[in-house]
Amino acid sequence: MGRVTTRHPVLHLGADSARQRIETLAVEEPLEIRLDGSRFVVTMRTPGHDVDLVHGLLHAEGVIAAAEDVRTARYCAGADDEGRNSYNVMDLRLAATATPEATSARSVVTSSACGICGTDSIEKLQRRSRYLLGPSAPVRRDIVEAGPVLLRESQRAFATTGGLHAAGLMDLTGRMLCVREDVGRHNAVDKVIGWAMREGALPLTDLILVVSGRASYELTQKAVLAGIGVMVAVSAPSSLAVELAKTAGLTLVGFVRGASMNIYTHPQRVAVGAGTVPEHPGGLERRGGPEAIG
Amino acid sequence: MGRVTTRHPVLHLGADSARQRIETLAVEEPLEIRLDGSRFVVTMRTPGHDVDLVHGLLHAEGVIAAAEDVRTARYCAGADDEGRNSYNVMDLRLAATATPEATSARSVVTSSACGICGTDSIEKLQRRSRYLLGPSAPVRRDIVEAGPVLLRESQRAFATTGGLHAAGLMDLTGRMLCVREDVGRHNAVDKVIGWAMREGALPLTDLILVVSGRASYELTQKAVLAGIGVMVAVSAPSSLAVELAKTAGLTLVGFVRGASMNIYTHPQRVAVGAGTVPEHPGGLERRGGPEAIG
Repeated sequence: MGRVTTRHPVLHLGADSARQRIETLAVEEPLEIRLDGSRFVVTMRTPGHDVDLVHGLLHAEGVIAAAEDVRTARYCAGADDEGRNSYNVMDLRLAATATPEATSARSVVTSSACGICGTDSIEKLQRRSRYLLGPSAPVRRDIVEAGPVLLRESQRAFATTGGLHAAGLMDLTGRMLCVREDVGRHNAVDKVIGWAMREGALPLTDLILVVSGRASYELTQKAVLAGIGVMVAVSAPSSLAVELAKTAGLTLVGFVRGASMNIYTHPQRVAVGAGTVPEHPGGLERRGGPEAIG
Repeated sequence: MGRVTTRHPVLHLGADSARQRIETLAVEEPLEIRLDGSRFVVTMRTPGHDVDLVHGLLHAEGVIAAAEDVRTARYCAGADDEGRNSYNVMDLRLAATATPEATSARSVVTSSACGICGTDSIEKLQRRSRYLLGPSAPVRRDIVEAGPVLLRESQRAFATTGGLHAAGLMDLTGRMLCVREDVGRHNAVDKVIGWAMREGALPLTDLILVVSGRASYELTQKAVLAGIGVMVAVSAPSSLAVELAKTAGLTLVGFVRGASMNIYTHPQRVAVGAGTVPEHPGGLERRGGPEAIG
């Protein structure tokens, strides 16, 4: 438990030196998730907040919609060869309201894949989201700017390992409610959304998702499915992330560095300055609608 | 084809400005891989070099061992709703020597997952690798230092998007033989290993794999399975990547920046300076063997 970092001896070479020293590594271990005793999925993750991770992952997969869909979640005893608890196998007992069959079409996906293929993937996803996107109130640009700074300040392990992604949920006043770190960026997002779900907070209409790296399709999809209206990435979004954000009504902001940022979609939710907030903020917008750059 | 980047209008905010401009995005699209007509896997990738990608991916999954295991690889015509070729669905006809059933135990893995769970995962992987690890000749440290520099110089699309990972194969003289970029780092590695496989070069005993970011378990596993002896990462490795490299005999170098680097495992393959190369370079080494820091 809590094995977020570990220490390892390395041979460090400098310009004129070669010496042994101890480096701190980000821990990566497999987590096997079982649903009612049957193996469902294995994900490589940094241990810690595994119950949140499992809730977020199963939400994004469409298996659960609320914390009540999970009756119990516990590490399996006797999971390794010698009968010890490895804390790497978690068994969930689902309530009758859960829909484990929802994910069957996605059972052979690989890294950062969505299991949807072809030109109609965006439309398919949009139908599956349970929520229209908010928030109805615009976010001040200084709050957006503060997101990556607050996220970095909350990252305990990154500073020592350089090997962890982070995700955070921030409210419209700039308060960072939950930050999680993981070797997998998708896990970090699953952990904060799973945390919010267990707090009974879905849909996350008035929260901002902040991610430490790039915005892939997969991460953007998780935000849309949780009803998040604004997603802030420190680095670049992919083409499909932008396309999804545009279609789903998500405000996607990238390359947020100091006072500089790019708003890729639905800029009306960011209050750039006096007079720049459009008349119709929030809500799911039509494709090809009136906005200038969406 | 060749849709590596695309352009998108954004609202760019500066300290005292808000103006529309055009940004270049890294393209991310799904690729569905079919084996003899049956859907096998979907991966999100940057289009381009898809045949290499498919070869590398199927090699890491244990489905193929050589290019001859694939009879044909072609984009399916009529893959989208309107019967057009989307160039996002690839159908492979396998030779009788291929083993598509090899991957059945890994069919429910998600992002950066290995499909192996529990404490015996490293041992399981090691048995599956077809190759002992090389090279027998040590690599000069200035060649290692040059790897990330050459990789970055070869990255055509990163400079414009900031959103692409890269992987490269370099020989022991510092010649970069193949560089590929992708939104998914695992795809970039699959593309270069798939390229080498199609060149008939496996095992890649005397080549160095250079990756633009972190070294995860997944990437390290791909290197081991291709017989690569030295892996160079610009950024941090994870704990499990180091553990795998140690067990499998791979020299893992991280945080390579200028003349500074960390050698995490099997340092005997890096010629640090006169007199520092051990007597028994190369070969698969015993766990708990004589080396000081392995």
